[in-house]
Amino acid sequence: MEINDTHDPNRRSWVESANLAGTDFPIQNLPLGVFSNAGGTPRGGIAIGDRILDLAAAVETGLFRGDAEDVARAAMEPALNSLMALGNDAASALRAAASAILTEGSADRGKAEPCLVPMAGATMALPTRIGSFTDFLTSLDHTLRMSPNGKSPPAFDRIPIAYHGRATTVCVSGTPLVRPRGQFANPDGATAYGPEPAQDFELELGIFVGPGNRLGEPIAIDEAGAHIFGYCLLNDWSARGIQFFESTPLGPFLGKSMMTSISPWVVTTEALVPFAAPARPREPGKEPPEHLTSTGNQVGGGLDLAMFADWSTEAMRERNAPAETVVRTNFRGTYWTPAQMLCHHASNGCELRSGDLFGSGTVSGPTPESRACLAEINEKGARTIAIGGETRTWLEDGDEVSFRAKAERDGYASIGFGACQGRVLPCFASGGR
Amino acid sequence: MEINDTHDPNRRSWVESANLAGTDFPIQNLPLGVFSNAGGTPRGGIAIGDRILDLAAAVETGLFRGDAEDVARAAMEPALNSLMALGNDAASALRAAASAILTEGSADRGKAEPCLVPMAGATMALPTRIGSFTDFLTSLDHTLRMSPNGKSPPAFDRIPIAYHGRATTVCVSGTPLVRPRGQFANPDGATAYGPEPAQDFELELGIFVGPGNRLGEPIAIDEAGAHIFGYCLLNDWSARGIQFFESTPLGPFLGKSMMTSISPWVVTTEALVPFAAPARPREPGKEPPEHLTSTGNQVGGGLDLAMFADWSTEAMRERNAPAETVVRTNFRGTYWTPAQMLCHHASNGCELRSGDLFGSGTVSGPTPESRACLAEINEKGARTIAIGGETRTWLEDGDEVSFRAKAERDGYASIGFGACQGRVLPCFASGGR
Repeated sequence: MEINDTHDPNRRSWVESANLAGTDFPIQNLPLGVFSNAGGTPRGGIAIGDRILDLAAAVETGLFRGDAEDVARAAMEPALNSLMALGNDAASALRAAASAILTEGSADRGKAEPCLVPMAGATMALPTRIGSFTDFLTSLDHTLRMSPNGKSPPAFDRIPIAYHGRATTVCVSGTPLVRPRGQFANPDGATAYGPEPAQDFELELGIFVGPGNRLGEPIAIDEAGAHIFGYCLLNDWSARGIQFFESTPLGPFLGKSMMTSISPWVVTTEALVPFAAPARPREPGKEPPEHLTSTGNQVGGGLDLAMFADWSTEAMRERNAPAETVVRTNFRGTYWTPAQMLCHHASNGCELRSGDLFGSGTVSGPTPESRACLAEINEKGARTIAIGGETRTWLEDGDEVSFRAKAERDGYASIGFGACQGRVLPCFASGGR
Repeated sequence: MEINDTHDPNRRSWVESANLAGTDFPIQNLPLGVFSNAGGTPRGGIAIGDRILDLAAAVETGLFRGDAEDVARAAMEPALNSLMALGNDAASALRAAASAILTEGSADRGKAEPCLVPMAGATMALPTRIGSFTDFLTSLDHTLRMSPNGKSPPAFDRIPIAYHGRATTVCVSGTPLVRPRGQFANPDGATAYGPEPAQDFELELGIFVGPGNRLGEPIAIDEAGAHIFGYCLLNDWSARGIQFFESTPLGPFLGKSMMTSISPWVVTTEALVPFAAPARPREPGKEPPEHLTSTGNQVGGGLDLAMFADWSTEAMRERNAPAETVVRTNFRGTYWTPAQMLCHHASNGCELRSGDLFGSGTVSGPTPESRACLAEINEKGARTIAIGGETRTWLEDGDEVSFRAKAERDGYASIGFGACQGRVLPCFASGGR
């Protein structure tokens, strides 16, 4: 995919809120999501400023023509799986048409205006029916800080290490996290069963699979980018007490499965083309294996994307204090690219289906402010954190975490992702007899 | 659930094949599955002898009445998720009605006979849309034999250890396994990328979730059995080279995700009530925690179920030699019961949905013949295995593995599960450039 008219930074929309400095959704972004409003059924939409272009209404009124109409019909469904199956060229046709419709001076404005829905009154849903959810480990800094011995695992240079998460507890931004209950080791070494004492978040990038492959057929590295439909923000909520107790030898399970949050808007691969960046340079002798080595700086490679986590306590919100930004990081420093993750994932013949979700793994960088989960910030519980005049080690009930991201580059319009937000609720009563 | 008329060993069916000694599907079993034939759409059916009672046809012709008709309508869908959501009492009403219809002398025989489909001409599908698939570790013998240090992991006595598998590559019996490609350590320690050299199987019991719970709401141990709808056989195909290379620190991933096979018939919890058995006795001090301790020998507790793996090579099949039975084990010796697995799984508030699947973990026992995967039989590759006059260490291309199981107890009719079968096909060409 290449830079084209839809990326033109001088392009403005007749939707005025899309032209405001700082908006996540200028006309150069046009992410896709699933929304409902006023009791209507969930359907696909495109974010533009503080409005949603209702694709069902837009198709109905004849705004899309030719190939773009076929794509818009797939995109207006209550989940974007069919759209993602069509691939990035189809998404590109839809993007070009939507951009033309929404551009200042468009002859379609009159027909399009009634198809706009205020974001403030809409309820967002999961963008896809997620068949499988996979979580990777792609930051060397995160890996080293979380490692029991300060070293990366033996296979870290050879493969983007990953595990399967729970697809059916991926929830859309805004869903509260009920603090899990579970078993963990107390500081004295005794095993306890109770509310999780070390509730954490992990700031990650979410990656949606486009066309995918058939069972038993791998995807070559230089084809991998074509199977990445787009991106969102992802909070891999982590109950550290449960996770550290259970993970030997089969990996994380109940420490993660209570919920994973994602932001509702899928920023397409094409929208992010201007922000391509190389992956983290490798030390000599630590190069990836040949089948995971791309011939060029292709789509699905590294990404220059600034990512942030904002944290507020109940007391802060009561006095209308703003959330404090506790993580400032960037995806460009990751050890493995999304295309390498996808190629590795299909390398054993595993079927990847349209709408499947990957988490990138915690996007931590080398600096103190780029530690992208509390376990890194508090050094596995050894340090406290000052937040809004209070002291924390882990998340407390009532705390709220919200992620945001911004792709910025000279000569291009900045685009954002919207929020991935969640508040911690108290643990449920014991499930015992 | 209790013993009732449907378990009466003297009950016979007018479907003669259901009365033959050795059938898996006598009238005391009545498992549910999804089938299609002659180009028809997939729909629910009940196995009886060598026939399938077509539930769509049976509902159409008015065979089911009252509550049982409502349940049969849920069971006739192209997936059994809706049926499983109704719970075991609903399944019990359907079972009682189907048993009455199919019993020798039933006045419904004339209407029911046209609703029977020969199994031989039917194509079986997955019984449910599997939202999430979880694989447990429940055999102490398997755990000790597979452990790098001969010890069980620290949390083994406290929790049924588990990880998420890949729901979207669970396939129905008969689907061939394409040998995966991947990275592994060669005997000289160097890392290689190529066809998996150590392809294995694991003989497991599959467990289907019934009603399930809502996000953030656990299930008490004494309620857990009511959320187990039924059982199947499950082959957790394991690529040991890939698995052992990748599993630190996040557990198995590509070593398992290429495919998991299940048998197509769901043997209901009620059908297995006569075969309840205690779990493996615990050593003093190793008792499960209180919230995983049941007050009685309830549904979803241990199960006296003999399980077998049969193996044939291409050469054996060419000379019409029978497959050789290489595993003879029993589920009754497992360390954790299905109810304990389910209670633990929901203990952190994780939502379990109707039709979700668990694998029990490899059902190995203490004896040599009860080692339920090749890595145990060949002692992690150190010993060869004689099979049909050939020598094996791991599965070779063309080898076929088929699982079967039988529940037997004095005073009751024996019931079986049908087959979980798969043949190993050669690895695909490299996915490289």
